[in-house]
Amino acid sequence: MGFLEKLTERQRVTGGILCVGLDPDLEKMPPKIASSPKPLYEFCRRIVEATSPYAVAYKPNLAFFEASGSSGISQLERLMAEMPAGIPTILDAKRGDIGNTARMYAHFLFGHLGGDAATVNPFLGRDSLDPFFEYPDKLPFVLCLTSNPGSSDIQMVMAGEQRIYQRIIVLLRRFHKPCGLVVGARHTPMLEDVRRLAGDWPILIPGVGAQGGDLHDAVTTGTAGGILPALINISRDVLYASQGDDFAEAAAAKARWYTEEMAKSLKRPPAPRKGPV
Amino acid sequence: MGFLEKLTERQRVTGGILCVGLDPDLEKMPPKIASSPKPLYEFCRRIVEATSPYAVAYKPNLAFFEASGSSGISQLERLMAEMPAGIPTILDAKRGDIGNTARMYAHFLFGHLGGDAATVNPFLGRDSLDPFFEYPDKLPFVLCLTSNPGSSDIQMVMAGEQRIYQRIIVLLRRFHKPCGLVVGARHTPMLEDVRRLAGDWPILIPGVGAQGGDLHDAVTTGTAGGILPALINISRDVLYASQGDDFAEAAAAKARWYTEEMAKSLKRPPAPRKGPV
Repeated sequence: MGFLEKLTERQRVTGGILCVGLDPDLEKMPPKIASSPKPLYEFCRRIVEATSPYAVAYKPNLAFFEASGSSGISQLERLMAEMPAGIPTILDAKRGDIGNTARMYAHFLFGHLGGDAATVNPFLGRDSLDPFFEYPDKLPFVLCLTSNPGSSDIQMVMAGEQRIYQRIIVLLRRFHKPCGLVVGARHTPMLEDVRRLAGDWPILIPGVGAQGGDLHDAVTTGTAGGILPALINISRDVLYASQGDDFAEAAAAKARWYTEEMAKSLKRPPAPRKGPV
Repeated sequence: MGFLEKLTERQRVTGGILCVGLDPDLEKMPPKIASSPKPLYEFCRRIVEATSPYAVAYKPNLAFFEASGSSGISQLERLMAEMPAGIPTILDAKRGDIGNTARMYAHFLFGHLGGDAATVNPFLGRDSLDPFFEYPDKLPFVLCLTSNPGSSDIQMVMAGEQRIYQRIIVLLRRFHKPCGLVVGARHTPMLEDVRRLAGDWPILIPGVGAQGGDLHDAVTTGTAGGILPALINISRDVLYASQGDDFAEAAAAKARWYTEEMAKSLKRPPAPRKGPV
């Protein structure tokens, strides 16, 4: 099964569109786990076990594994090998390079680690993205518009009639096979604009929860009122719901709450448009 | 010693500005090395040993190590730990992300691996770059203009009066401490333009050799006639000068040839400007 088939099935089973971001931070996880021999693996394994009834996908964040070097990557390899069958993974790596280098990154993410999807950075242009489109059943999610202040430096800049993020989507629709897009939840009017430009492509939406975006807006806008594919990513709010021994149960409760809220939003009409793009 | 002091000293010693890119490819290295237990480490170690009289810096390409997973990163860790003192390293990783994730990547590259410099991707804007500026003596090289066809998709786009790559340099000069810039050698008029906008910041120039850029143009334009810091990166042309048992000697001969050519160019006046930017 490809990424989209797995995603559709998970949405049917859970009723929500919750993607659980796996950002294992040694300073935020319970000290007992942080001091164990394989803390990144152990923390994520317990989180995955507890939240698997609710997650439509998991998004391991490569930076949090790389920060521990080869040991961190080894823990990620084990985690990926033991992921529950049927729940797709999005490797959040934001890689971008040219030629043979891009092919090596695509091999690492889709071949070696076996991710079902991966985030990629479009700054180097279309040929830098090509190698990520060469894996059947694997889906690249192209960075489009992030929710940080620096998004105004390049992504939001007007180039002629279009902003750069709009230009990226238009180029992707013209030249590439279907892909996903990454759009921060704090930009609701822009999210609406991306949804319009992106046809039926899936949108991965970070920036809800700890980063401040509105959940109902993100769900209804991202899915165009429940009819198109989107994922809302929550990381810290779920992972660090408790720093005690009950961290996994607390994460499950938070994941359940998010999923139930999303299910309600998916049944309600979308919020009215907030303003001009 | 910081990156720039090491670089200046190496230019004095070698007479050139050759950065040797370490892209260890199992399919291109001698089969005897490729089938050894730690082929990436072994190949790079032999290349570094042979070319160290000529290199002003080494640029390990993270993708070629990651493609072998935790084993590849473990080999990179060992290689980095054994790099000759006094020759600076530029970790070619092109990472870019926000907040805590960017901090994790900076820790991996500058803290864990101990690189003197690293390439970073500016697509997420200024706050995504901040963590890479927080390490004293370490230098981020910001991607500016690459030499592949896709550079026209974002980097070369006109935004008002400026192209995006020009905007990036202007923003960096306004908001950040000194950094390096990455500019492909195939764009000589743009390289001249970058050199003008970048003040005395160092420029890392890939795209000469296998990628087709002119060496003399790149050296004289990048250094503004020999007075400002620049590095010309050569990877494949040096690494795979021979696929036989003499690969290290062949690499040394190629590195020596490049260094001698660069030394000649540094003593000659810059080429006349080729045309408008």
